Amino acid sequence: MKESWSAFDTFEPHFRPLVIIELAKDTKEETKEWLTQRIVDKKKNGGAQLLVKPLVKEDGGKIDGNQNLYLVGASHLRLLLGAETVGLVKECNDNSMRTFTYSSRNTFKDFAEDNHDFLTMAERQYIIKHELENLRAKDERMIPGYPQAKLYPGKSIMRRLMTSGILLQIFPLHDTEELKKLWYTWCGQVKISYQPLDEIRCYFGETIALYFGFLEYFTFALVPMALIGIPYYVFAWEDYDKYVMFASFNLLWSTVILEVWKRCCAIMTYKWGTLLMKRQFEEPRPGFHGVLGINPVTGREEPVYSSIKRQIRIYLVSLPFVCLCLYFSLYVMMIYFELETWALDFHEENESYFSKLMLFLPSIIYAIVIEMMNRVYRYAAEFLTSWENHRLESSHQNHLILKVLVFNFLNCFASLFYIAFVLFDMKLLRQSLATLLITSQILNQFVEALLPYWLQKRHNKKVKKRVYSIKVDTDLSLFEQVNLEKEMGTYLGTFDDYLELFLQFGYVSLFSCVYPLAAVFAVLNNITEMYFDALKMCRVFKRPFSQPTANIGVWQLAFETMSVISVVTNCALIGLSPQVNALFPDSKTDLILIVVLAEHILLALKFVMAFVIPDKPRDIQIKLARLEFESLEALKQQQMKLAAESLKEETHGKKKMN
Amino acid sequence: MKESWSAFDTFEPHFRPLVIIELAKDTKEETKEWLTQRIVDKKKNGGAQLLVKPLVKEDGGKIDGNQNLYLVGASHLRLLLGAETVGLVKECNDNSMRTFTYSSRNTFKDFAEDNHDFLTMAERQYIIKHELENLRAKDERMIPGYPQAKLYPGKSIMRRLMTSGILLQIFPLHDTEELKKLWYTWCGQVKISYQPLDEIRCYFGETIALYFGFLEYFTFALVPMALIGIPYYVFAWEDYDKYVMFASFNLLWSTVILEVWKRCCAIMTYKWGTLLMKRQFEEPRPGFHGVLGINPVTGREEPVYSSIKRQIRIYLVSLPFVCLCLYFSLYVMMIYFELETWALDFHEENESYFSKLMLFLPSIIYAIVIEMMNRVYRYAAEFLTSWENHRLESSHQNHLILKVLVFNFLNCFASLFYIAFVLFDMKLLRQSLATLLITSQILNQFVEALLPYWLQKRHNKKVKKRVYSIKVDTDLSLFEQVNLEKEMGTYLGTFDDYLELFLQFGYVSLFSCVYPLAAVFAVLNNITEMYFDALKMCRVFKRPFSQPTANIGVWQLAFETMSVISVVTNCALIGLSPQVNALFPDSKTDLILIVVLAEHILLALKFVMAFVIPDKPRDIQIKLARLEFESLEALKQQQMKLAAESLKEETHGKKKMN
Repeated sequence: MKESWSAFDTFEPHFRPLVIIELAKDTKEETKEWLTQRIVDKKKNGGAQLLVKPLVKEDGGKIDGNQNLYLVGASHLRLLLGAETVGLVKECNDNSMRTFTYSSRNTFKDFAEDNHDFLTMAERQYIIKHELENLRAKDERMIPGYPQAKLYPGKSIMRRLMTSGILLQIFPLHDTEELKKLWYTWCGQVKISYQPLDEIRCYFGETIALYFGFLEYFTFALVPMALIGIPYYVFAWEDYDKYVMFASFNLLWSTVILEVWKRCCAIMTYKWGTLLMKRQFEEPRPGFHGVLGINPVTGREEPVYSSIKRQIRIYLVSLPFVCLCLYFSLYVMMIYFELETWALDFHEENESYFSKLMLFLPSIIYAIVIEMMNRVYRYAAEFLTSWENHRLESSHQNHLILKVLVFNFLNCFASLFYIAFVLFDMKLLRQSLATLLITSQILNQFVEALLPYWLQKRHNKKVKKRVYSIKVDTDLSLFEQVNLEKEMGTYLGTFDDYLELFLQFGYVSLFSCVYPLAAVFAVLNNITEMYFDALKMCRVFKRPFSQPTANIGVWQLAFETMSVISVVTNCALIGLSPQVNALFPDSKTDLILIVVLAEHILLALKFVMAFVIPDKPRDIQIKLARLEFESLEALKQQQMKLAAESLKEETHGKKKMN
Repeated sequence: MKESWSAFDTFEPHFRPLVIIELAKDTKEETKEWLTQRIVDKKKNGGAQLLVKPLVKEDGGKIDGNQNLYLVGASHLRLLLGAETVGLVKECNDNSMRTFTYSSRNTFKDFAEDNHDFLTMAERQYIIKHELENLRAKDERMIPGYPQAKLYPGKSIMRRLMTSGILLQIFPLHDTEELKKLWYTWCGQVKISYQPLDEIRCYFGETIALYFGFLEYFTFALVPMALIGIPYYVFAWEDYDKYVMFASFNLLWSTVILEVWKRCCAIMTYKWGTLLMKRQFEEPRPGFHGVLGINPVTGREEPVYSSIKRQIRIYLVSLPFVCLCLYFSLYVMMIYFELETWALDFHEENESYFSKLMLFLPSIIYAIVIEMMNRVYRYAAEFLTSWENHRLESSHQNHLILKVLVFNFLNCFASLFYIAFVLFDMKLLRQSLATLLITSQILNQFVEALLPYWLQKRHNKKVKKRVYSIKVDTDLSLFEQVNLEKEMGTYLGTFDDYLELFLQFGYVSLFSCVYPLAAVFAVLNNITEMYFDALKMCRVFKRPFSQPTANIGVWQLAFETMSVISVVTNCALIGLSPQVNALFPDSKTDLILIVVLAEHILLALKFVMAFVIPDKPRDIQIKLARLEFESLEALKQQQMKLAAESLKEETHGKKKMN
């Protein structure tokens, strides 16, 4: 295997593995050799120019388990050049943020030729992932050893290996030292403190740090609501004017926090450099298929799929299917309410211990059915979205999120809407809301973090035992670490975490004037949530690749939509309350008109506020404007020089002609 | 004056005057000489390197009138280099749009070294204006001859001359031949045809062409509404369901047309190159003042003004003032309605010819008062916005538009709202709507185009007489043309034209279910409006400078807001109609709830539609993506070359070390 080693590792005495590549057990030698060759090959030969090393030398004898594991690393210089390729933005000596270029490396803060920590580990791993994904077929028509795995020039090799089942996974390695430090600052101390967002970002990357930033921000933002909500519970306030005040405060407050979040987000991502990072050209997602054609944007040969066909699939299949599911979910809800009344009647007729137990039956059945529907629907949504065949991962994600969001919204809130606006039973509404909120919070934390943590721990012990039984002539701790991590679950992204917060926001804001205590529970939940999410990230899952991001994307829109809906529901609830009805004993019409008017004014206020509050703080705006100005000035200087030269030449030429 | 001539005009036998500079009568010789010197000076010496020529040679003897007129032109080469500086986007040979650069000039369509029509005249004038405005002070501390007119390095000379009253005006010259041709294709034929938008754009620039494009689009978009509206009038339909249908159609249609306009606008501005044009760094507007400080963006010394002070002025002075004006306007309206009832009573008591005349009096008085208020308010708004001291012209314009828009909206529609929702008098509403719409349309076209045209014609005759009485040894036709044009009125931008369309859109959509015929009148008006606006542009006003623009800016938002408001008003009107009320004889509550529900559904539909319809057509999206991809690829190639070199060097260095 000597030839598969890079020419560089002789110069790099401290080869530091950053990323692990796991190939299938039965991968052919020929394929392995070709792949490692392509990875270490020079850039100019179309390689990635990285360092690669098998985890176990082949002469170490036969070992059980799949041992087609490769460690990938890169020289310091290679990483710096890669940082330029991915367009990393770093802080300069003058505290401004600039796109890193190798030639201007000395103007960057903390840069020194021997400072290997200039790039965070998350950034280094991101660069390697980017370089591996951009390893493209040259003249190969197929993967060597696998004639059925076709390639065409420009096709990403890693993606084809993945879809052909040869490549099992690529994942970044944990840094045990760093992880320990991070865990200590994050959750090591018992005292409540801000989360170490910068450290999280250095270790896990921007997407995850931004999620924790949002979680923290959202929790702080809920505190005023919770504080105002407590006296309502303590003193059992039931006055009309107090509820109206609380609801109005809530509605305006939720607008303010969502707008201010954009500013906080801009501050954070500016500091992290992702606000300025140029969007890379997006590759087709791995699952995308189509007939080979010419991409109109790149002019390259690649699979193309008609946009009209996709539109037809979306509007004629997915949309009706989603509507059907929503209808079905509503139907199930109606059955639940019928069962509920039936159980109540049964209990009243023959009161017994058994009938009392029967009272709980409908709720339990409904909860189980909802959970099942959620899971089945999630699969269906994933299948449909894949079948829609979106070219870009981002558009795939957006369509998936939209589908899941709508269904979850209905499942969680339909029964509450029914109780509020069909049954008009505010007592029951409050009770259901409390039950739903609290049980879902407890269940979530258990299913999402504690249970996997416990399973993981048990599994780790097994793996360790197996590892110790094998004798290999490799650094044992690294060998153990890789084997432990490769079997860990994969973190599937922040989707479920955001969804949880989104539904929580719904519980807090949709019916806030009925149950002011919801905010208190949300705050309490979020404090433990931070801990459990940290546990999940550090102990349960494989380390995820860092993902630069400048905002929370479609979730911002989802939260804003929820806050608009909550204006409507809160106004309607206030209009329904008996206290308000008592104020208009003669004319219900006047009452409704006033409520509708108030609703419209609140909605208008929301839009004006969203318009007036700038999305970026002034100093960030100035910094961005300065960067734009500088690049314009540089361009102008260049043009002026060119112009002066051209004019001079022309004058010269004409003079000669005269 | 020999030395004030550019070194180039010896090479440019056909000096073509493009722009006129008019200085004050008593401008000192020293200042004139300095200015012309700066204009012709080489770029590298900080000049504009343009050609300049006094309209009348000084030895032509004493002439009456102000004759400090200078013709400014530029060599073909200079204009091409200027096109690069302003970032003009032109069509390439492969039909793609690219930013023009002098070095790549041969790849552009229709480019030839001797084709002086490669740049349209509007573009050439825009370039000269840009170059003149960017003529900046070097080490001058003041304008020579005017010690009180301070300068500082980097200050735009033309702006200081303007604010000191030395420079009276800069305006582009008409091209009589081109203008005749344009007028013929525009309005010469009697047949109704599309407007020659590309020709308008070549002559007047993008802002004005886009206005005419919008006018045309809007007229076509109104045709379906008008066609559906006619049978309501002809057959005197008064059925509930027909009105509801018309209103629903109207509301969804108005959303569709506003969304589709964005697409049409993108198609047009892509073809014109302005969609791709990079925003230039905006200079402070001429009226901006402040203490000399360091601009945080540019790092240059220039007047700065605290943003907090401006916010205080906006929110603590302007906002209350506008609210007060709105209140006052409502108050005047109430007086009008009182006068109206008083006149009616008077007429009923003592019926006579005089009392019949008295019936019209309140309307006449109200119309006059409204017109006066409008004018006074316009001055106040302009004063306040200037006093707010916005740094940028765009932000100044936005604040001015917002102020004027709100007031005009109230003035035009408050009485209609009052009639509809306080008096509940649908007959009167229809009558008032018709009167207001038709009179405002007729008056507008008269005041805006016909009257100025007539005045201008009379004035032209006078000027011609005076010109012929003077004997000068200059090209008489040019002399006459300049003298005619310099006295023409200045076109103050598209603000009033858009405002007229905006109010018209209000008349058509706000109460569409009461008066379906409004769309018919709007269509008729717009057809003549096109003619009168063309007349105004070609015959009445000085030629305006071209202004590259990619969209109709804040007006898009204004029209969208109007369409949201019209959902609310139409739903309310339908709810008020006796036919609908007859359907719910027992319960008004149900009626209101259903109307409110329908309104919310319509609003939600509008937002979903606005979200689903893409702002740019697919082919434009692809073209934009292709450009972005190409620039990313170019960058990557460059980086890869650099990377390969750096790696090679390092390998080399290390090998040597070994």
